[in-house]
Amino acid sequence: MTKTEAQVEAAIAALGPLLGQRLSLSKSDLAQHGRSESYFPLTLPDAVAWPETTTEVARIVAICAQHAVPVVAWGTGTSLEGHALAVRGGLVVDFSRMNRVLEIRPEDMDVTVQPGLTREALNEELRATGLFFPVDPGANAALGGMAATRASGTTTVRYGTMRDNVLALEVVLADGRVIRTGTRARKSAAGFDLTGLMVGSEGTLGLITELTLRLHGQPEAISAGVCAFADMGSAVAAVTDTIQMGLPMARIEFVDAATAAAVNAYAGMGFPLVPHLLVEFHGSEAAVAEHAAAFGEIVADHGATGFDWSVRAEDRKALWTMRHNAYYAILASRRGARALVTDICVPISRLAQAVEETQADIATSGLPGPILGHVGDGNFHAILLIDETRPDEIEVAKALSRRMVERALALGGTSTGEHGVGLGKRDFMAAEHGEGWAVMGEIKRALDPANILNPGKLVPPGG
Amino acid sequence: MTKTEAQVEAAIAALGPLLGQRLSLSKSDLAQHGRSESYFPLTLPDAVAWPETTTEVARIVAICAQHAVPVVAWGTGTSLEGHALAVRGGLVVDFSRMNRVLEIRPEDMDVTVQPGLTREALNEELRATGLFFPVDPGANAALGGMAATRASGTTTVRYGTMRDNVLALEVVLADGRVIRTGTRARKSAAGFDLTGLMVGSEGTLGLITELTLRLHGQPEAISAGVCAFADMGSAVAAVTDTIQMGLPMARIEFVDAATAAAVNAYAGMGFPLVPHLLVEFHGSEAAVAEHAAAFGEIVADHGATGFDWSVRAEDRKALWTMRHNAYYAILASRRGARALVTDICVPISRLAQAVEETQADIATSGLPGPILGHVGDGNFHAILLIDETRPDEIEVAKALSRRMVERALALGGTSTGEHGVGLGKRDFMAAEHGEGWAVMGEIKRALDPANILNPGKLVPPGG
Repeated sequence: MTKTEAQVEAAIAALGPLLGQRLSLSKSDLAQHGRSESYFPLTLPDAVAWPETTTEVARIVAICAQHAVPVVAWGTGTSLEGHALAVRGGLVVDFSRMNRVLEIRPEDMDVTVQPGLTREALNEELRATGLFFPVDPGANAALGGMAATRASGTTTVRYGTMRDNVLALEVVLADGRVIRTGTRARKSAAGFDLTGLMVGSEGTLGLITELTLRLHGQPEAISAGVCAFADMGSAVAAVTDTIQMGLPMARIEFVDAATAAAVNAYAGMGFPLVPHLLVEFHGSEAAVAEHAAAFGEIVADHGATGFDWSVRAEDRKALWTMRHNAYYAILASRRGARALVTDICVPISRLAQAVEETQADIATSGLPGPILGHVGDGNFHAILLIDETRPDEIEVAKALSRRMVERALALGGTSTGEHGVGLGKRDFMAAEHGEGWAVMGEIKRALDPANILNPGKLVPPGG
Repeated sequence: MTKTEAQVEAAIAALGPLLGQRLSLSKSDLAQHGRSESYFPLTLPDAVAWPETTTEVARIVAICAQHAVPVVAWGTGTSLEGHALAVRGGLVVDFSRMNRVLEIRPEDMDVTVQPGLTREALNEELRATGLFFPVDPGANAALGGMAATRASGTTTVRYGTMRDNVLALEVVLADGRVIRTGTRARKSAAGFDLTGLMVGSEGTLGLITELTLRLHGQPEAISAGVCAFADMGSAVAAVTDTIQMGLPMARIEFVDAATAAAVNAYAGMGFPLVPHLLVEFHGSEAAVAEHAAAFGEIVADHGATGFDWSVRAEDRKALWTMRHNAYYAILASRRGARALVTDICVPISRLAQAVEETQADIATSGLPGPILGHVGDGNFHAILLIDETRPDEIEVAKALSRRMVERALALGGTSTGEHGVGLGKRDFMAAEHGEGWAVMGEIKRALDPANILNPGKLVPPGG
């Protein structure tokens, strides 16, 4: 699809009466919706819309379809792979005005929300119910964006990804049709899993306008702790043993020595400059104490030192603030740097090998690249710090990323555990999926034959 | 698609040299692959093939595609909705010779198997590893069929459905292409979830030729028990409380008074003729004792009697043999009867209402219809017993089933919790999915434009 200025103008002329002040062509609005959280260059859309209802979204899409103008959904802009950048121009649809909790049903432990609601705002609303929404990618992302990118994060080892926690969706398709996928039943065998197809489709098959999510009971008690290891292999071996023992970890996070150093500098902490595991258990008071103690024995067998666990909220908060700030701590460790954040996920038996080979590769490259990750899932990130004015550094980082992906695929893993494809991983889809990538293109063409939904992303070129 | 005898003959002529004795047109083989587990009439295919490799399956499909002959996959034939009946004739592909465990990886808690392997055979092979595969639909079904129908069952409340336990698939598409969906990574955000799309697609999008499945640790200890309630509402309220307390039930099954009577007659048991709950907990010895005791307190609050739990394997076996035999006990309670098995699933807050209205409706109909179900998921079955020589009874049963589905949809649920669409639920897809059903048809046409894969099932007519 090629769009012309005349098409864009015609679409904007038709959108104006529908949206009024909620359609903008101002430079600052375009710039705000052209920036990415990571290393991708500024990419301006032609216009930004702020719909307030599903009906408006459907009319917006129908108008854009009529004029062959691209439509790109926007949540909070916290994607690390440039998902929401309008690489072929067109209209960015910002969901920040569709951010309400529509209905909480405590007896069914589910909730229906609009896509612009952030996960922290949802959990704030849920506080009094005794329930919570567990998926935690770090950033305070919008739930629509989290579904569209199949987000996960620190609690996935226990509570699953967005795939596991989205029960049903309302979706506006490329031709303006509105469908509802799934029901509030906990399971169903009624045909193709369209909910599952939309989760992770990154705005290329439809725009999510409503989500029904599973909730979980707030744990009666939480225990958490941190410990230090002589080397990464020992840390991973401890995790493997913990999983095989069946200890139900709610979170289990790895940070390497370089991350510990960055956090120390950023937050005035005093972690030893070695690899660490951070762990959390959810359950009854007796259970979380028993699990933390059992974990302490396992890590001691692997030579860990300093394991100290607590059930006090203030201790836990310091611990996880550290983990959540790690990305910014790492960014701050090189003045003015941008990040290329890698995201491979491998079978747990291959994790030590994947991390060790990656560390060696980064050391050779000369770029700073601290490593941290959701080790219980086999998922880790190297935060490659680059000076964006130096094309040579970007090339070095991209080459490192490529070798990490090749390593992950060779070990039976995936190019992206949780950040999605976006712009950064599209080049690896053929290697990861083979002919399956062509199948994705065939599905895309069936549902969006004019390729107006987030064109230039995820599926094969021309698809 | 209309197929002619000449097309079938040409396909069979081309398949003969490939398969030799593993292609059959014998009456007994056709009849064996034309029978259904439930009330659907005998439906003969034109031929049956027993492939031994993926390459053979791909060549079979390519040959059938060339001659526009339908291809229908067959596992063990235990489907309750006629999924594997060749309603437009053509070739049934029986996977019973592709039944090997290809690789067990205990350190990653996963396994790769062929589709003809049954779940009991897999668990037999896993016994020494300390791991098991939890999905348990009752019948000793083939794992390929379980994936194709998105099977679940008694353990779903804890371990999930096939959707949650299939990591990756190898699939032969309608044009003979072979794709691999997913990897062995525990999670991935790398594009459309083709694994999830194939799970539950009932052989209409591809033939599953290999599965990689998640395994779980065999629990250190298991506690199980049964208790009786004055009425169904009390039993469901006890389940709701148990879920909200966060007790991690591994199974929680409901049987009504009529089922208790059938089991008593079939197996010489002495259950009181009232509703019952059967429950099981998995965990450490201390945990399963604590959970069973806590459950005992909850059910006592709801007036339950006779709750007696045990961690002894022999007690547990009697209990679950009872549950697993319930279907046959109910069938045996009316001489010569066939069953129409309903399968609705509703939000747990609506379960008591759904069961009570269904019981009243069945009582009015005059047909026997004991009710049992996976109450922790909101999923239950009425086993409607019909004399298949009496069309009036079949019509009464179908009308009851239709009202159950309408009730489920009105309560926010689904027409099929676990048995799938097949022939029995296709008429309800428009009501359940609305325009989403058309989307399923569009996906089907994209991947199987000639409609050779299990035609006449799941997607809209003409799709």
